[in-house]
Amino acid sequence: MNHKKYERGYFMPPEPCFDWVKKEYIDKAPIWCSVDLRDGNQSLIIPMDLEEKIRFFKLLVDVGFKEIEVGFPAASETEYEFLRALIDQNLIPDDVTIQVLTQAREHIIKKTFESLKGCKKAVVHVYNSTSLAQREQVFRKTKEQILKIATDGAKLLKELAAEADGDIRFQYSPESFTGTEVEYALEVCNAVIDVWQPTPDKKVIINLPVTVEMSMSHVYASQIEYMSKHMSNRENVVISLHPHNDRGCAVADTELGILAGADRVEGTLFGNGERTGNVDIVTLAMNMYTHGVDPKLNFSNMNDIVEVYEDVTRMRVYDRTPYAGKLVFAAFSGSHQDAIAKGLKYREEKGSEKWTVPYLPIDPEDVGRKYESDVIRINSQSGKGGIGYLLEEYYGFDLPPRFREGFGYYIKDISDKRHSELMPDEIKDIFHRDFVNLQTPLELIDYHFTRNGDISVELSIRFKGEEKVVSAKGNGRLDAVANALRDNLDLSFDIIDYNEHSLSKGSSSQACAYVEIIDCMKETRFGVGINDDIIAASILGMVSAINRAVNEKAKIGGEN
Amino acid sequence: MNHKKYERGYFMPPEPCFDWVKKEYIDKAPIWCSVDLRDGNQSLIIPMDLEEKIRFFKLLVDVGFKEIEVGFPAASETEYEFLRALIDQNLIPDDVTIQVLTQAREHIIKKTFESLKGCKKAVVHVYNSTSLAQREQVFRKTKEQILKIATDGAKLLKELAAEADGDIRFQYSPESFTGTEVEYALEVCNAVIDVWQPTPDKKVIINLPVTVEMSMSHVYASQIEYMSKHMSNRENVVISLHPHNDRGCAVADTELGILAGADRVEGTLFGNGERTGNVDIVTLAMNMYTHGVDPKLNFSNMNDIVEVYEDVTRMRVYDRTPYAGKLVFAAFSGSHQDAIAKGLKYREEKGSEKWTVPYLPIDPEDVGRKYESDVIRINSQSGKGGIGYLLEEYYGFDLPPRFREGFGYYIKDISDKRHSELMPDEIKDIFHRDFVNLQTPLELIDYHFTRNGDISVELSIRFKGEEKVVSAKGNGRLDAVANALRDNLDLSFDIIDYNEHSLSKGSSSQACAYVEIIDCMKETRFGVGINDDIIAASILGMVSAINRAVNEKAKIGGEN
Repeated sequence: MNHKKYERGYFMPPEPCFDWVKKEYIDKAPIWCSVDLRDGNQSLIIPMDLEEKIRFFKLLVDVGFKEIEVGFPAASETEYEFLRALIDQNLIPDDVTIQVLTQAREHIIKKTFESLKGCKKAVVHVYNSTSLAQREQVFRKTKEQILKIATDGAKLLKELAAEADGDIRFQYSPESFTGTEVEYALEVCNAVIDVWQPTPDKKVIINLPVTVEMSMSHVYASQIEYMSKHMSNRENVVISLHPHNDRGCAVADTELGILAGADRVEGTLFGNGERTGNVDIVTLAMNMYTHGVDPKLNFSNMNDIVEVYEDVTRMRVYDRTPYAGKLVFAAFSGSHQDAIAKGLKYREEKGSEKWTVPYLPIDPEDVGRKYESDVIRINSQSGKGGIGYLLEEYYGFDLPPRFREGFGYYIKDISDKRHSELMPDEIKDIFHRDFVNLQTPLELIDYHFTRNGDISVELSIRFKGEEKVVSAKGNGRLDAVANALRDNLDLSFDIIDYNEHSLSKGSSSQACAYVEIIDCMKETRFGVGINDDIIAASILGMVSAINRAVNEKAKIGGEN
Repeated sequence: MNHKKYERGYFMPPEPCFDWVKKEYIDKAPIWCSVDLRDGNQSLIIPMDLEEKIRFFKLLVDVGFKEIEVGFPAASETEYEFLRALIDQNLIPDDVTIQVLTQAREHIIKKTFESLKGCKKAVVHVYNSTSLAQREQVFRKTKEQILKIATDGAKLLKELAAEADGDIRFQYSPESFTGTEVEYALEVCNAVIDVWQPTPDKKVIINLPVTVEMSMSHVYASQIEYMSKHMSNRENVVISLHPHNDRGCAVADTELGILAGADRVEGTLFGNGERTGNVDIVTLAMNMYTHGVDPKLNFSNMNDIVEVYEDVTRMRVYDRTPYAGKLVFAAFSGSHQDAIAKGLKYREEKGSEKWTVPYLPIDPEDVGRKYESDVIRINSQSGKGGIGYLLEEYYGFDLPPRFREGFGYYIKDISDKRHSELMPDEIKDIFHRDFVNLQTPLELIDYHFTRNGDISVELSIRFKGEEKVVSAKGNGRLDAVANALRDNLDLSFDIIDYNEHSLSKGSSSQACAYVEIIDCMKETRFGVGINDDIIAASILGMVSAINRAVNEKAKIGGEN
């Protein structure tokens, strides 16, 4: 690698333009324009066909876009046909304006206007490249010649729009703006504005694209501020941004550019588009949303939107794409899971309206995602908090603290050895299989209590295949059962903790008992009993703990 | 969706901190620390096993990382074993420092130091969460109590490091910095610095993570500037950034944070990491590179790096990830292809050292990518420039302008109808199949010229299955052949353009002739002849054009 081959190819504005930095956040949604069907489509390995484009167009309308660039109708038959289908089949809602792109060349502009016949309203977006590199290398023209291409195009647009049947608005882009001397870009834009003479009723759009991302984001913001401050007839001009993502900063370019004066943003869903993509409008909109600002776009059905997008573009939404990727709400790490669980609990306790849960910048349910499947996920890096939370939230098991910790380590260890993620269902199954109502080698068949001062029990059991009836007394029921087992089966243990709760609300619910015992070797064991009857549950819990001890089941962290 | 559920959860510094905005770009690489094996690993559906971690560690060393966070050794057996393997197998080069993460809790810190036995040098990275949300919801502790957790941890680190056998450096993170009151974060960091008493020989690292991205990038930069300006013993402190990408701005956060005073960056390859990922160090480094600054990391074998990464993490590098994705150098659109082709030609002509080619922010070859397969790609949106460029650059066919334009439309149309991308090889095959040495229905068998003032030709041909010998005179050879065919086969045409060039350098090269004819209906046709002999090539070119006309092959754009 030879870094000396490169130099910065962008241009600073001729005066400091840093007013934007004092604004803290974006308090109002810009005008959004989707370029999915143009910039997005042209960068696909297999561009969309007519049917796919219509499906995508409808999705964009549903999401709430009011301006949609639909193609470059003079460039190919497919593009032309799509535009005609939209117009002829009346697919454009009254509150939606379509936009078509054209180079600033006479025959292309004329064909573009022909393709718009019968369209009620449209933006005709004319562009030519103004950058130093393209002037020198591609067009081999002077600044004056390049400016004339722009103004000639602007004049032709004005002429043809006057004859057109629909309401035609104008947009101009100094293409490769980020490689253009800023004062020169201003000169060209102002010359175009002079041709068009916009009014409050007939504003024009000046689009300042990051055709290729060449500078840091704050430099682009300063360029935009300079353009905005010095633009002719500024109040009748809509300044638009169109960032690409070559340096991974398209979202920041756009956000800082809006602070610097831009009114409008062109981008795509999930950042599809040439090379590294256009700016991702989903991220921009949801960033505003999580700051409490209405983005004027609706992504509550994110899963459906992803599905249509993936279907028609044959692209995949990357797993870590903000707000939409499969993994972006996932918490695998123990401390994150623990904090999320506590945050959700805190929110419930306080009845808090505001969303402040740690590690989740947005409530996943706002974009149609589920806590259960998307948030707390268990791999070998997960901790007791998350696993305990899963059992509690989804299955109603409120494990006592030592058991919760121990069971967490138990599950992590399984995930570590299996080398795989564990799903909530699997964790519940392991819990049942290894801790609940264990009946081997000690099986509880029946029991009968009598009370006469002390409590007496008569237990029918099977132990290592042999059926027995044993009995004993105790201070309480569980104590009596423990005594009966200890005295008759040569077992040595003590109960050190006992907790019980109902598993679901209502009288028909089952009881769940957690019993912790300690054996003669000072090792503790947990067992769980579940039964309709609270006594049976507690006995089964103790029996399960004994069976874990007798079988020398792998100890868990809390068992020591 | 209900945006009122959200409010901005970050905090502004107590004074304006905007000095950073006046710096234009980053002129020096920061210290890089990879957290792929910790933050990256813990967010995988299936975390890496020991062998995979070792493979990744070696890759990171090869790329040039000098600081590598290798895990949380007190958290799990796998992490512990990996650290031991690195130490016991002597896998850590002398100029690389490993870093281990620990919560600020006594038993975890102690276990962390145990795990480091025999390690020559390491950074012990201690953290506790300081954010308002976590203090309230997770820890339910006061600011003073949270500060004490940090300083207690710092003290224990100092004690244990004094007893350790290796060279132990310290790092502290106020975790969830972006949700912490900035003055309070400063207070905690300064208290930790007071405990550690860093010196020029024993600097400490203060890491200010974007644990969750909560603000716009310029706000984070201002927070960093405030911290940097007011940090105790600043000259002996290395300020580190650790951004996550929840708002899609991790790269911008990092870049502006460096302008604001940071010395060091923690991140991962391709932005793997919790949720939306950590900041992508590949993008950061290559952004510097394309500004002419040595990033001190080497990504020239990008394809191999991607391969190892995808293998061990089971993640995929997204197609539009800057500098690394499959599509980021692709130009499908005609105008982009045309500009790239002209830019590459300009560069060659001028012998220019600097890279200024339009639409390519970096020379793809610098990261091991190829123009042929990665840059000019042909779908229905492509233009004549790109297709002509492909034929010329890769196969040596320098089509005359009208043919170049026509053939471009011909290929676009095929791509449009097939609904698929065309590879360079396929385009070459179509060119051969439909334009070169066509021999049906008119086949050239042999020819013989004699010169006697005029040129006479005797042609052996087969036409519609019938073999004939025909002859005629002409001003030149091609003219004589044209006359012979016209007079004897009832064909009506004129030659309107003729070009010929050799296909490769050296005497053994073949000749390639482009012949354009016009028929009685004023329709033009192109044909191409390729042969060792220049005369045969030109006759075959004319015969091909005639065959296209006779067969009424689809006309191409230049043929009208």
